[in-house]
Order: sequence, then structure tokens, then C-alpha cells
Amino acid sequence: MLSPTDPTLLALPADLADASWRALSRRAPLVHCLTNEVVQSVTANLLLAVGASPAMVVEPQEAAQFSALADALLINLGTLNHARAESMLAAIDSANAAGTPWTLDPVAVGALTYRTDFARRLLDLRPAAIRANASEILALAGQPALGRGVDSGDDSLRALPAAQALAQQCGAIVAVTGAVDYITDGRQTWAVAGGDALLTRVVGTGCALSALVAGFTALEGRRLDHVAAACALMARAGERAAAQAAGPGTLLPHLLDALWQQVGEARP
Amino acid sequence: MLSPTDPTLLALPADLADASWRALSRRAPLVHCLTNEVVQSVTANLLLAVGASPAMVVEPQEAAQFSALADALLINLGTLNHARAESMLAAIDSANAAGTPWTLDPVAVGALTYRTDFARRLLDLRPAAIRANASEILALAGQPALGRGVDSGDDSLRALPAAQALAQQCGAIVAVTGAVDYITDGRQTWAVAGGDALLTRVVGTGCALSALVAGFTALEGRRLDHVAAACALMARAGERAAAQAAGPGTLLPHLLDALWQQVGEARP
Amino acid sequence: MLSPTDPTLLALPADLADASWRALSRRAPLVHCLTNEVVQSVTANLLLAVGASPAMVVEPQEAAQFSALADALLINLGTLNHARAESMLAAIDSANAAGTPWTLDPVAVGALTYRTDFARRLLDLRPAAIRANASEILALAGQPALGRGVDSGDDSLRALPAAQALAQQCGAIVAVTGAVDYITDGRQTWAVAGGDALLTRVVGTGCALSALVAGFTALEGRRLDHVAAACALMARAGERAAAQAAGPGTLLPHLLDALWQQVGEARP
Repeated sequence: MLSPTDPTLLALPADLADASWRALSRRAPLVHCLTNEVVQSVTANLLLAVGASPAMVVEPQEAAQFSALADALLINLGTLNHARAESMLAAIDSANAAGTPWTLDPVAVGALTYRTDFARRLLDLRPAAIRANASEILALAGQPALGRGVDSGDDSLRALPAAQALAQQCGAIVAVTGAVDYITDGRQTWAVAGGDALLTRVVGTGCALSALVAGFTALEGRRLDHVAAACALMARAGERAAAQAAGPGTLLPHLLDALWQQVGEARP
Repeated sequence: MLSPTDPTLLALPADLADASWRALSRRAPLVHCLTNEVVQSVTANLLLAVGASPAMVVEPQEAAQFSALADALLINLGTLNHARAESMLAAIDSANAAGTPWTLDPVAVGALTYRTDFARRLLDLRPAAIRANASEILALAGQPALGRGVDSGDDSLRALPAAQALAQQCGAIVAVTGAVDYITDGRQTWAVAGGDALLTRVVGTGCALSALVAGFTALEGRRLDHVAAACALMARAGERAAAQAAGPGTLLPHLLDALWQQVGEARP
Repeated sequence: MLSPTDPTLLALPADLADASWRALSRRAPLVHCLTNEVVQSVTANLLLAVGASPAMVVEPQEAAQFSALADALLINLGTLNHARAESMLAAIDSANAAGTPWTLDPVAVGALTYRTDFARRLLDLRPAAIRANASEILALAGQPALGRGVDSGDDSLRALPAAQALAQQCGAIVAVTGAVDYITDGRQTWAVAGGDALLTRVVGTGCALSALVAGFTALEGRRLDHVAAACALMARAGERAAAQAAGPGTLLPHLLDALWQQVGEARP
């Protein structure tokens, strides 16, 4: 069992994070989001705050057309239904054909049969990245998990071995997020601490982080570092925002402002 | 006709409200929300702010699976369509089989035929609670109402007799909300004053109150008191938020903060 | 080619804008919005902030019933799919039969085939107003455009001739918005400057402006002036909000407050 002080778990160096943030700002990626009904607005606002361009195109034929034009694709299973699943498969096929990287957020897989079967099927379609909480990673890996609904009942470190195995199995960068985030390609792992527990009292911060991860997969260079930089960006902005917020309501506007400021400060 | 000074209309005692708020905080119920497209985000954020866990699971098979796992179910007819209606019926059946209480928000029933027929059909499926404005309660009871769209054209007190009859007919706690909220089991009625008219200028505050009511139905003890405590929580937080807001835009973040603070202060 | 200093491009006089804002406040129109999944909440909140009543009714039969009751109808193609397209056609038919004006927001037409074909078909159904960015207007007019996703790659002035031709072709007031907005009936054109670039970092400000335009089409009097007044209201409120915001997160609550205040100040 890994411990948080294990020397193979290195903290992401600040200069790597900063370089990724600058690259994101220069690239301003167009991110096609097929995400759940609840978080579409916050997802779009978070991408806009970091200088990316979100677009939600859902009709199957258009979703396929659009994924080939976009710089990255996000697939989030939050309010999955049959029509949306069809659009997702069309978009992923088109993204793979065009070389557009796609990111999976397997919201609440485990207890719910339909989405769990669908998520396992997607693992064969070569995601560039997977962002999930510990319970979801354990469930994807077929291990017992404690999640109930969308909340994790597990610690992110406990899910790290499953995340590493998942990364090796499907070739994706896997980010298992929690009080500490671990980002792994199956061999090397970055740890990202920070953030604030109040972020869990705002809907969609995890889903929007997955959209941010998708944006960072569009960058040139080492994808492991870029995905970790996405997690670090949310962690730093979350801390800044929590210091200013009087509760979960004022946290969200401050979080978007902090992301905007953080990326602005990283600009050359 | 009842008058606001009628002695049978008692104000909810503060100690009952406070006890309910503490119980909610301890229980942290998982609330399955099948609600309308417009208010999903604010509904989730409001439940998170009071310490509850929202989850929106919409595919019929998953909705049925999930309602059996959840502590409470919310059914909101706001943007009803055939697919969502199917999921709602599956979720209610499963909730009833599992003993999960479910709450009905019959948004805009009356002028619109499809949802009005559907709402009347749901009344036979033993809701634990109904939260609606005066026009919607009158329409559910088959009486003439003045509502147009989602806004009530009627006063909550005028709808109280219909609310009482509805409670007796279907066994639900009925909350008819407005400038004063009346919460009744058909025999006893609590009155809850407060709130602020500015809340009507933020979309989803009524719908999110229904989700809060659903959360309170998960608590042990007298459901009439708990549903009234949900209304009182929104009224108190609404007042605190309105005192800080410069308009409807800043009202929403302050409302979520105020709910968070109010529940925090109620903790033992 | 028109230049920004062309004498036929007159700035909207402040007294016309003010009179329109007062009329909107008195009328408090009920606006039926068939809009995209991402912006429903911000659209509703913006209409509420200016004193209008939003309602989202989506099932085809109900959408037709409701458009006949509403004061105005908004059709936004943002996350178009077959089911929503069916509801839109039913609502437009009913609106036209009842004399309810309807407004088109042709989000991201151009590169995406399905919605572009649908938008062209809608032009024959006599919209009262069209609100779009330059790339969308050029695409609607069958001219080459630079848009990618929902963002315009073109300048609003470059699209003005296409907007004027479109207005003459389908009888609508056409508003092509950008750093400067141009509002035309095909003969006369108002220019509206102002706003703030930070507004483009908040999702749905363009879509919500289309809803505002829809609300203003419900007013008696010269529709060209009213649509320009809608653009001017957003521009003025956007400036006030940007002066108070620390980034895109705090911009949205301040924008809603500023709209509320601006309309309040216009009241007689």
C-alpha cells in the first residue's frame, strides 16, 4: 500500500504547472463538452474563465461533425440517457478519427448498472484522460467501492493502485481527485494538494475540473504534466476563492475570478 | 374563509424549526431530484448548502435503481416531457416499494393540459409532501386559479382550504407558499412568514424549496413540523440574503451562504 | 462597404432607449423560451431581473398551448436536437396563429449542417426579430464566415450588409451584436456601442440578450427602436457590472443587479 510520503509520489513542481497554464492561455482550446444536465453552465463558465472556448453540441450528427473541429472532447456520464449515449459514441468515433483527444468523467459509476456498463465500454475507445473520484476509479477497475450517488466514500490514495492499473490498461492519464489529487500515467505519479473542502458544497466543481483536464489534453508536450497542471490550477484557485468566500454561494463567483486571475498571472 | 389572524393558523415555533434544522444537518440526506431543466443547478447548490447530497439520475432504469438507494425523491414537473415522465413513474414506483418518501412540485399546473393530467395521476401514488404556489394548489384541487406560466396569480391564504382538502385526500403534507407559507396535514396548519419579494426575481427558488422539503421528509419524527421547518429555513435565509444583496444577481450567492450559515448555527 | 462613421449609422438616442425600458417595465412580458440546455438558468434570471416573466415549456403539445398565452417566444438553436426542433415548430406555428412575436437566435449556424438547414427553414416562418453575432448572420445569409463553435470570428460591421438584406428578406428586425451592435429593419440602422469584453467570458450573455430582445418585441410601438433598446440595456448594464467585477465570476451577479437597477431607474 502506498503512503502519502512514498518517494514515488512527487508533488507537481510549480514551474511545470506554470508552463502548462501559460500554454493553455496561448492555445485557448475549443472544448466540445458532452456533459450532464446539471453542470453545463458552470462547466462552460469555468472554461471561459481560463480563456478556453466551450461548446455543447448534442445532436448525434452534429456532435460527430463538431468533435472533428474541436481541440478536445469531454464525455461526462452524469445524467446519461440513451439519446445522449448515442451522441457520445458518435462524437468519440469522430474525435478518434480526427486525432482529437477525449476525456472521460465516469460520474457515479458503480452502483448504477447502465452507466457502469457504458463506462467500461468507453475504456476500449482510447480516452486521453480520465478524471474521477476514488470510488469511481475503484468501481471502473472492478474493485469494491463505498460511493453513494455522486460522492466518494473513499480516499484518493486508496484508489491510486487502481488508477495506475487503469492508466496502463487503457493508455490514459488518470487523475483520481480528492483532498489530495493523484495524476498518473501508470508509471509516474504526480500529487497535487490544496483546494478547499467548501468546493464540495458547490455542484459541478469536479465535473468542471474534468472539462479543464480536457482543455489541457489539447496542449503539445507531456500530457501527464498538463493534466496535473489542470488539477493544480483548480486547487490554487479553490484556495484563493475559499479565502474570500463567506459560504458556498459566494465561493463560485470567487472561484471563477480566481481562475481568471491565476491564468492571467501565468501569462508571459 | 380563513383570515390571517385565525387562531387555527399558528406560527411555527422557533424551537421546532431549530430542532428540524439540526436533524437535517445530522442526517445529510441523499435527495434524488427529477426536476426541470432550468433549475437543476440551483437545486443542487441549495441542497449542498444545507449539507444534503443531491443527485440527478434520469434514465428510467437507473432512476428506479437510485430511488431505492436515496433518502428522498423530488418530482418537479417544470419542463415535463414524455421521456422524463417515464423516468418519474419508474422512480416513484421504486421509491414507494422501498419506503423512500417522495415530494411533488406541480409547476404551472392548470392551464397546461399535459402536465395537469400527469399531476393528477401522481396524486394517487401517495406523495409524502406537495410544495406549490396558490394557483397550482387551486388547479390541483380542480378550482379556478389565476396563474399564468409559473407565477401565481393568487394569494396563499385563499388556497389554504384547497391545500387542506388535498392533504386529506392524498395523505401528503401540503405546503402552499407565497408571502406567507401555510403548511398543513389537513387538520393542523403552520404559518411561516418572512422571506423577501426579491426571491421571486431569482429563478428556481420555489423549485429548490421543494427539493429542501424533500430533504426534510427523510427525517424521523413529525413530518408536518419538518416540512414547515424547510419553509422557515428558506424564509430566514432569504431575509438574511436580501439584507446583503444589491439586486437579484447578488441575492443568489448570499442566499446559499445564508442557508449554509443558518444550518451551521443550528448544529449542536 | 459601410464605415463606423457612416452617417446612416446613427447611435440610438438615449430618450428612445429610456422610453422602451419604461414600457418593458410596465408591460412585464411573459416570454416563452425554447432555448439551449446550457443557458436556461441565466436566461431566466436575466428576464426576471428586468421585470419580465420567463417560462420554459418544452413538450410539443404544451409548447404550442403556451406560445398562444405568452407575450413573446424565443427560439434558440444552441443545443438543438430532433425532439426540441419539433417543439419549436409547434410553438412557432401557434405563436404565428395567435399573433405572438417570436425571436430567433441561430447559435453557431454555419459549420454545423443540421442546425443551419433548420435555421434557414425558420426564416420562412416570419420571425419578428433575429439576434446573432456576425459569423452567424453571414452564415444565415449564405456568405463565408469565420465562426468556430459559438464564437464569432467576424466583426459586426462587416456583417451589417448581410443583416440588412436578411431583414428585408424575412421582415424581421435583425440585431448583429459585437463590440458595436447594429440593429436594422433593412432601411434604418441603429448603432449601440458599449458593453465590456469580459461579458464574452460568461456563458449565455448573448443568448440571454436574445431573450431580452424577445421581451421587447412584445411592446407596442416601433419594433426597431425596442430591439435596439434591448441591446442598449445590456450594454449599459454590462458596463456598470464590469466596473464592479473582479473577473467573470463576479460579473454575472453584478450584471443581473445592474439590469435590475437600470430598469428601476427608468421607471416613471
